[in-house]
Amino acid sequence: MNNTINKFVTPEIIFGTGSIKQTGDACLRLGAKKVIIVSDPGVAEAGWLTEVIKACETSGLDYITYSELTTNPKDFEVAQGSEVYLREECDSVIGVGGGSTLDVAKSIAILASNGGNISDYEGVDKISKPLPPMVMAATTAGSGSEVSQFSVIVDTKRKKKMTIISKTLIPDIAIVDPQTLATKSPSLTASTGMDVLTHSIEAYVSAAATPLTDVQAKNALSLVAEYLRPSVASRSNEAAKTAMAMASLQSGLAFSNAILGAAHAISHAIGGKLPMAHGEINSILLPHVMDFNFIAKPQKFKEIAGLMGVDTRTLSVKEAACGAVKLVREIAADIGTPMTLSDIGFQKDYIPDICAAALADACMITNPRDTTYWDIEKLLHDAL
Amino acid sequence: MNNTINKFVTPEIIFGTGSIKQTGDACLRLGAKKVIIVSDPGVAEAGWLTEVIKACETSGLDYITYSELTTNPKDFEVAQGSEVYLREECDSVIGVGGGSTLDVAKSIAILASNGGNISDYEGVDKISKPLPPMVMAATTAGSGSEVSQFSVIVDTKRKKKMTIISKTLIPDIAIVDPQTLATKSPSLTASTGMDVLTHSIEAYVSAAATPLTDVQAKNALSLVAEYLRPSVASRSNEAAKTAMAMASLQSGLAFSNAILGAAHAISHAIGGKLPMAHGEINSILLPHVMDFNFIAKPQKFKEIAGLMGVDTRTLSVKEAACGAVKLVREIAADIGTPMTLSDIGFQKDYIPDICAAALADACMITNPRDTTYWDIEKLLHDAL
Repeated sequence: MNNTINKFVTPEIIFGTGSIKQTGDACLRLGAKKVIIVSDPGVAEAGWLTEVIKACETSGLDYITYSELTTNPKDFEVAQGSEVYLREECDSVIGVGGGSTLDVAKSIAILASNGGNISDYEGVDKISKPLPPMVMAATTAGSGSEVSQFSVIVDTKRKKKMTIISKTLIPDIAIVDPQTLATKSPSLTASTGMDVLTHSIEAYVSAAATPLTDVQAKNALSLVAEYLRPSVASRSNEAAKTAMAMASLQSGLAFSNAILGAAHAISHAIGGKLPMAHGEINSILLPHVMDFNFIAKPQKFKEIAGLMGVDTRTLSVKEAACGAVKLVREIAADIGTPMTLSDIGFQKDYIPDICAAALADACMITNPRDTTYWDIEKLLHDAL
Repeated sequence: MNNTINKFVTPEIIFGTGSIKQTGDACLRLGAKKVIIVSDPGVAEAGWLTEVIKACETSGLDYITYSELTTNPKDFEVAQGSEVYLREECDSVIGVGGGSTLDVAKSIAILASNGGNISDYEGVDKISKPLPPMVMAATTAGSGSEVSQFSVIVDTKRKKKMTIISKTLIPDIAIVDPQTLATKSPSLTASTGMDVLTHSIEAYVSAAATPLTDVQAKNALSLVAEYLRPSVASRSNEAAKTAMAMASLQSGLAFSNAILGAAHAISHAIGGKLPMAHGEINSILLPHVMDFNFIAKPQKFKEIAGLMGVDTRTLSVKEAACGAVKLVREIAADIGTPMTLSDIGFQKDYIPDICAAALADACMITNPRDTTYWDIEKLLHDAL
């Protein structure tokens, strides 16, 4: 067991079918009177925004909605949202949506209470004043943002994703309602599911992993290996939706406390340039990063194979680790996420910028293997 | 997977060797200026109270100590402590010690902010006003009180243990420093360790268990099965101390959210009458309660056997469950905890009172098998 000092922080969690109806009461318990409800057009169309509005009305809360968000969370959307918050004299934030939407909601909370531009808070522990009460209802089983101390926002001028990490970004209450997953398209289920898989594996081998994060990462990994494919296959498979919602939540608890690694650092760098789904980029990078990181924690990579259902009893550590990488590729192929960077329009001349941005990303700090510019360059070439 | 709504609440956790030195800073972060440090003579003698005082001084906190506690936490000690808190104009509470001490510290926080007598708060959700900031440093790897929504206090007039359950009793910050376990006697290590085992098993089969509590309970169970005996054997086995500290913490996270069962309900009833260590009473009752509860969750009892290291592959569900019960008895015998109620001075004429008190205990609500007066009577006869 790890003998250093481990810190573990989580929000209060409300998990289960129908839990989205508790959003209003959850906010009320935190002393809210007027709340900004941050959402996006897809979530609104699926009916979940209406569900949250009803919950706020039932709880007697005053509210204003802000839901004109685009794919990938952008700095100007955060600025606009915080203006709405201040103008409307809100005192609390509800987010309802996927990772992008929740990250915007959390970042609105930063600007509303700390002022300035969202780029002022890039990096670790840059937020000085307490945030208003936050209730986050996740609808995609992907980002883990509802429990994490992360917010990732696109800097539209610098064309890069900024990673903001601070304990104060952990919402007060996280609401995870598996029935919200039934309205996702198969491709969104696939890409967000591959993000969950990446969170589980990167958190498990992270340099900052602890026994408290390991139990979460391991359980998430077993669930995603078993249930991601059935979840993509059917909107109405309730057991698969519940399992994927739990996997997302648990991988979020793991990576919020253990942080992530090179796949996310590079993915953030690419995501600033290309408007691709974060989960798809992770899905392409993950097998290459696993191969690269193997020598840092061979035994943990063997365990990853076992947790994913590979019978490792007669395999060497190396064989088992290779089996895990192969299985990640098989799942991606089965559910139809892109397999190469070329598939998503990545061009060779992006490489220098991506390498530089990835090296500077906060997620690189906890990658288990020391990583140089040239390592990232090779990895990107391999993934083309 | 369970499809009802699951709630899961934990404090911020700081775990690791040397973490006790962070007690002062943890309190400072919560806005404390003057803190009451609740401890007991054993912990003071071992030097841990001094360690916490030093931490408070380093952080520039004003403090007063209250450490004249006896074994098993008593109502008048809570009343005295809250008088000290109010007289000295404290604004926060640190507890440093085992379960009894932390339960007194938490209960002082109740009276300091809510007034009245501690018996006013017996049962579930009876506390209306917010408690002052609480930092709890556990020193016994037993009670899980540092993360739980429980406080168990002896009502000295009625000669029974009162169970107080409320989310507001979850401390703000839990500090678990494995090195504090090195100063425990072998018998205290044994009895508190059997308490951890009981927490893990009762939380795992609880009627209120969820996937979030199960991962904690399962990991705790594996750790205690492997490390309790080595931890009793040697004060200086650091790996065993770290594992038992983690097992205690994780079983606490499990039972705080899943609650417990008949072993604890009956144990609280007996503990009100006999001044025996809570863990010893649990240790005697646990195998009998496992036998009784088997039909409620057969598959989970088989899994318990597997988690404890029994090779269950060729065993029937019943055989595996019996294997788990046998192993619990073996561990108790190996570490020398009492095996029968007669060993601890229990007399037959206590039975009617114990049955009545156990039936009314809050822990009985989540026992997986419906339990009658006659069931408890038979169980006590079997355990004599």
